[in-house]
Formats: sequence, structure tokens, C-alpha cells
Amino acid sequence: MEVSPRLLVVRRGQEEESFHRGRAVVATAAGEKVLTLGAVDAPVFPRSSIKPIQAIPLVTSGAADKYGFSGAEIALACGSHGGSPLHVATAKSILKKIGSSHDALECGVHWPLDSGESRALAARGEKPTTLHNNCSGKHCGFLAVGAVRGLDTVGYTDASHPIMREVTNAISLMTGAELVESQACVDGCAIPAFSMPLVSVAAGFARLGAGEGLSPSLACSAKRIRTAIVQNPIMLSGKGRVDTSITAECHGEVFVKSGAEGVMAASIPALGYGLAVKIDDGAQRAATAVMANLLLQVLQKHSLVTTKAKSVLEGHARFRLKNWNGADVGSVEPVSLAGS
Amino acid sequence: MEVSPRLLVVRRGQEEESFHRGRAVVATAAGEKVLTLGAVDAPVFPRSSIKPIQAIPLVTSGAADKYGFSGAEIALACGSHGGSPLHVATAKSILKKIGSSHDALECGVHWPLDSGESRALAARGEKPTTLHNNCSGKHCGFLAVGAVRGLDTVGYTDASHPIMREVTNAISLMTGAELVESQACVDGCAIPAFSMPLVSVAAGFARLGAGEGLSPSLACSAKRIRTAIVQNPIMLSGKGRVDTSITAECHGEVFVKSGAEGVMAASIPALGYGLAVKIDDGAQRAATAVMANLLLQVLQKHSLVTTKAKSVLEGHARFRLKNWNGADVGSVEPVSLAGS
Repeated sequence: MEVSPRLLVVRRGQEEESFHRGRAVVATAAGEKVLTLGAVDAPVFPRSSIKPIQAIPLVTSGAADKYGFSGAEIALACGSHGGSPLHVATAKSILKKIGSSHDALECGVHWPLDSGESRALAARGEKPTTLHNNCSGKHCGFLAVGAVRGLDTVGYTDASHPIMREVTNAISLMTGAELVESQACVDGCAIPAFSMPLVSVAAGFARLGAGEGLSPSLACSAKRIRTAIVQNPIMLSGKGRVDTSITAECHGEVFVKSGAEGVMAASIPALGYGLAVKIDDGAQRAATAVMANLLLQVLQKHSLVTTKAKSVLEGHARFRLKNWNGADVGSVEPVSLAGS
Repeated sequence: MEVSPRLLVVRRGQEEESFHRGRAVVATAAGEKVLTLGAVDAPVFPRSSIKPIQAIPLVTSGAADKYGFSGAEIALACGSHGGSPLHVATAKSILKKIGSSHDALECGVHWPLDSGESRALAARGEKPTTLHNNCSGKHCGFLAVGAVRGLDTVGYTDASHPIMREVTNAISLMTGAELVESQACVDGCAIPAFSMPLVSVAAGFARLGAGEGLSPSLACSAKRIRTAIVQNPIMLSGKGRVDTSITAECHGEVFVKSGAEGVMAASIPALGYGLAVKIDDGAQRAATAVMANLLLQVLQKHSLVTTKAKSVLEGHARFRLKNWNGADVGSVEPVSLAGS
């Protein structure tokens, strides 16, 4: 097995304390590899990084139009939110529009991903519901597809349910990956999880960002989704969280979406590029830093980086570590991206 | 650079989703290597795994005797606690005995490591203090050393302060590692962090567990510390947390202590063995599983494992992954420990 390259180093003082290996790829909508690090044709579970593509049927089915989805609501369907009152209210708003309730959500319950929101919920004497699940927006989108199609949504998270089949088909069309229903694994929120080549995730994000190589209907849906994301980045994850921060601060130049187990996907619409990173060990800190560094290199090479975006991406790619007293104790630094 | 072996695989369904590389060693008090995986002479920052050894001066200085430390209080000085009311009360009790207060603690403030305790604190309308810092017990122990020595404790976390010099000296004596004050890095709780060969951490835990090769004073202190830990495992981390769980369920056969960035140290007193694991990428989930698997292999080889310990260690070494609905979605599995 090919050993993945070292992509990120964590130092204490000047000494190396930990490091992360992983794979990364920049690809075009046609699937052409612009830059590769490691085995980019080997499989990855894109997990939540694929959410913006899983939201395609929400638009292509006509549900977003019929129920009058706002941009914020479409963006929430693409996000892994932190469980803030704004996120919960937005999910509730979708359910009201489609005449459903949070009891219909099959994503399960967990305390808000954002620890501050989690404590705030506890301080209000409340407990989390399915609405606080980071995937609730996506699941509201699935219910909307079911509503517009007139389907019974019970069991909608099963790979063989018509809603999931529509979602799986959209992923195939967008990424070019062949997905076999009988080989579906299960994601944290109960829906099917398919593995696919890492480069396919990047190609999917290239198409999502630029609309190239897609049917008119898909291209139109992709545009609506990326517009919703770029205009409502707070719905992607939340205040102070990575996806929101990078997408908001790079205002339209790039959008990103992270997934569990060290995955991150991104799009640079102006170049028609998609990017995908998978850290071998599943560490999110590394996926974020490696993707930020990769975005920075690509944008700089094409003289596309603004001062603001440069500052934000550099801040995620390379930073000092502080202890609880705020003292400097070390650093996180990307390894040079030689590429191949 | 030697590539560390794969030690743990995380699967989604039957497919590999992530994996961890790392280093592990089983050593005797004399520093003899019984089993090695990867570069075990290469350095590691033991971080909090070294706490039971950092607590040695609390006993050797006479502070534990003078101030009448209970076993629970000594164990808290060796722990990275979850910030429960019991942990906070125990830290307060130490401070009262030595005539100090939490204002003297220089460890910094953070919300309890245990997310349930963190929400409970918020639900009570309270905010964390230095007492909730997972290292507060250790720092109370340092203040006790300062009190019995009649020292001004302001700035006690500096590598050049007499308390820290006594602690650093104890680490050197117990591990055999040469520690140079001017090369100290800084830990999360502000005290010096020294790197040392991974095998030195294992040798230190072998000596802590068996007392071999130590001066009478050190051997006596080591015995008091390991007795306190084994009799009060709840102080090591907390209910439902790894260090407490393994140490409690193996009642005396082994004790373990984890550290940040994927470190775990352990002792099997009956064999005079110490064990140390460092996961390259710093993942705690891997350090725990790899150490549990290693302990299981060693105990089984020597026919020392009880039914209860076997069940507990197997549960940490290899388990099924569930999603928010409780459905089975994958597994965590150790890679066969061929050793060298």
C-alpha cells in the first residue's frame, strides 16, 4: 500500500509532537487532475463533505420552488450546523413550509456540535431534539423532496427508498462515481454512505462550482445551491466554525464543506476547480489546515487571492498553539506541497 | 524517517475509512525492551501521561504526610480529571489543607473535559474556575510541595522554579531520561514539557509499578502513588472515562494514564513491565485502543488476565461504531501486533 505523504506537522516549541499523513487532489469538472498528493484514485467516504451535492434533488425535484425555500434554507440543507437557535429556527421553518414536523426526521439526536451552543441549551434547561442534529437541515431537504413527490417518508433514510435513490443518483451524476446501492454503508445520520475515488469528490465540487459538463437542469440546480451557500455561509456550520469562516471570508472565491473522519471538499468556481482532502487518520484539524493551504497555493498561482482571503486561509493553514493561559506553546504548520 | 506501523483501523461497514500509525513499547524497569513497534527510541512528549511520576515530589518532599493527603487526593494529583463536583471538591480539600486557594493555581481555566459535567455546570448557572482545569489536582500537588518547602509559589510553573526543578529531577530519576531545563517546552497547563525517548516513558512506568531499580525513598513514594491510583481510579479521569475505566476494572493488575496528542502509558506491576504508546497523529481514540490491545496481549501471554479485565480491555481495543440512532455502522479494530 502506498504510504500517504506527510501533510501537516504539529510542533511543541520547535520540536515535532505529532503529524498527519493524507491525500489531496485538485481536479477539473472533466476529472482532469491538476495537482495530486498521494493515492487520489483510492476510495474515500466523503461523509458530510458531499452534502451540497446531496441537496441537488431538493432543487431538481421542484421542492425548493414549490415550498418557497429561502437561500438560507437551501444552505442549511447543505450544512453541518452547530445547533444554534438560528439553525434550529431555520430547520423548523422548512418543516412548517412542507407541512411536516421534527418527529419525521430520522437523523437521530445529539447535543449541538458547537460546545458553546450545547452549554447554552443546557443552561436554558432544554434538551436537544432531532432539530439540533448537525444534519437536520439536510434531512429537512430530504423530507421536502418526499413531499413534492407525494411519497411516504417513513424509512426515507434507507438506501432503497425513492428519496435516497434520487440523492444517490445525483451524487453519481455530479461526481461521475459509480455507486452500487447494495454496497451502501451507513452514515452517522442514518442515510447511505458510499465510498468513491477521492478525485471524484473533487470533480463533483468542480462541477458544483462551475456547472461545466452538467445537463441544463443540473447546472441550474448547482448554481442555485452554490449561490445559496456563498450568500448564507452561516448555515454551513456556524459562527466561528471552519466551513462558515472560510466560505464567508473568501466571499464567493471559494466555498468549502467538511466531512467527518478528516475529509474536506472545496470549489474555486472562477477556475472550474474542485478540491478534496482526506487525512488518513480522520483528523479534522489536519483536513482544515491542509485544505486552507492548498486553496491558498492554487489561488496565489492564479493571482486570484484577495488580501482578506489570503489572511483567512493563512490563518487556518498555519497558526500558533496557545495554552489555557494564552501562552504560545507551539505551532501547526503545513508540509510543503510538492505535488506530482 | 522510519514510517510507523499501522496500529488501528476504523471501518465503515466492511470498508476501511481511516487508520492510525504509531509506536509502542513494552519495557522493564531496567529499560530492556520486551516488545517494540516502530521507532521506540525516538522522542515523545509524554504530556499528561507522566502525571503519576510528576506527583513523586508530593510524597518525597514530605508534603503528603505533613498535610495528611488522602489516597484520593494523591490520585487526583496524578489525574486529568473530568471536572465533576467530586474532583473539584477534592482539589478544594487539598488547597484547604495546605492553606492555599484556587487563585494560586497557574494552570488556567477551561470548561470541564467531560462534556456532561460541562453542561451540568452551565445548567447550574456557573462558570469554570482553575479548579475545573483537568490538571488542577496536579497543580494542587505542586503547591503542596511549595508549602512544605516554605517556597514562594508565584511563578511555580516556570521550568527554573524550585518546585518544577524538583519535578523535573523526579522525572529524570524515574525514566532515566536526561532532561535539560533550557530545552523545556511548555505544556497546556503552563508547566514545562520535556520530550524523551518513548521507551523511557515505559521504563518510568515499569519502575513506578514495581519499584525496581529505585532508591528506598523513591521506591516508597512510587508504592504510595500506585496504591493511591489503584484504590481511587475515579480521580484519574472520571466516571465512564478511559483511564478510570481500565484502571478500575483491572483492579490492581494494571494502571494506565493517558496524555494529550495520542499518548498513553501503563504499568503491569506483577510483571515489572511498563508500556508506552504514541500515535503519530495525536489521536486519543487510537492510543486507548492500541494500549488496551497491547495490555491484553501481554497479560494473556503471561496468563495474568482475569475474565473481567479481558472483557474491559477487549471492549476498548475492538468495538462496533454506532450512529445517533444506535445502528451499527462500522468498527474500530487493532492491527495484529507482530512486534519486533
